[in-house]
Amino acid sequence: MEEKAIQDRWHELDSHCWGCGRSNDQGLQLKSFWDGDEVVATWQPEEYHMAFPGVLNGGIIATLIDCHSVNTANAAACKAEDREYDETPLSGYVTGSLSVKYLKPTPIDGPVSLRARVKEIKKRKITVTCSLFSGETECATGEVIAISVDTSNLLG
Amino acid sequence: MEEKAIQDRWHELDSHCWGCGRSNDQGLQLKSFWDGDEVVATWQPEEYHMAFPGVLNGGIIATLIDCHSVNTANAAACKAEDREYDETPLSGYVTGSLSVKYLKPTPIDGPVSLRARVKEIKKRKITVTCSLFSGETECATGEVIAISVDTSNLLG
Repeated sequence: MEEKAIQDRWHELDSHCWGCGRSNDQGLQLKSFWDGDEVVATWQPEEYHMAFPGVLNGGIIATLIDCHSVNTANAAACKAEDREYDETPLSGYVTGSLSVKYLKPTPIDGPVSLRARVKEIKKRKITVTCSLFSGETECATGEVIAISVDTSNLLG
Repeated sequence: MEEKAIQDRWHELDSHCWGCGRSNDQGLQLKSFWDGDEVVATWQPEEYHMAFPGVLNGGIIATLIDCHSVNTANAAACKAEDREYDETPLSGYVTGSLSVKYLKPTPIDGPVSLRARVKEIKKRKITVTCSLFSGETECATGEVIAISVDTSNLLG
């Protein structure tokens, strides 16, 4: 597994995401790492991230799958194009669509882990599949289609 | 529009959800209201809920659509079965699957609104469609399939 998280390699301008930005002190600060052809992460919920007592909230699960998958897409694009991660700030792939299937309730009292891989790379669209586990149990599975945009003028 | 939020009518045991529980001080506290056959909500993001500066995070959007839709499903089930909202605590519909399409970047500097309706009710499965707007602009659209479970033993 690579030692430096993907999120810690983006330009400072791309480090403020609520789900995974290193500069967002009030966010979830997910950290994703290359592990061969896959990207992995481990994250510890707080008790208040619940759906019901003892069970992790589905929106938090969706956020983790979204951020982990979009980081996978952007890192894979850098790899494919032989670019440095922080070479083109505010320009990359954002979530076009997200789908999540909740297979089992996810316990909140231990860490969850994520495992993603690129399913398809096209010039403007990268599809990533991602599963979320509690221990060895696959609790949720998702797919993200990431779309290439210039985020510096997203609201322009 | 009804005066009392759906989330404020569930049993105390069902009021701790990070996305919409009235008892979760660290959560988003989404409030959803019947408006005829639709369920509506308005929610004000904090700046730290960003994806990029100025743009609302996609995981937060997924959470809002998930919670708003599952509340719609549960409230519709109570209506269909002529039950009080707090009659059967820890027993209801939870998210089986969630899909979201991100149509446009969602500005973070103003409130977002949600509008959901039941597409189909079956005995154990309710499908809800939901859109998220910034002003009059539809920024995201989603579908939730909610599944009936007894949440008192979700981890049993």
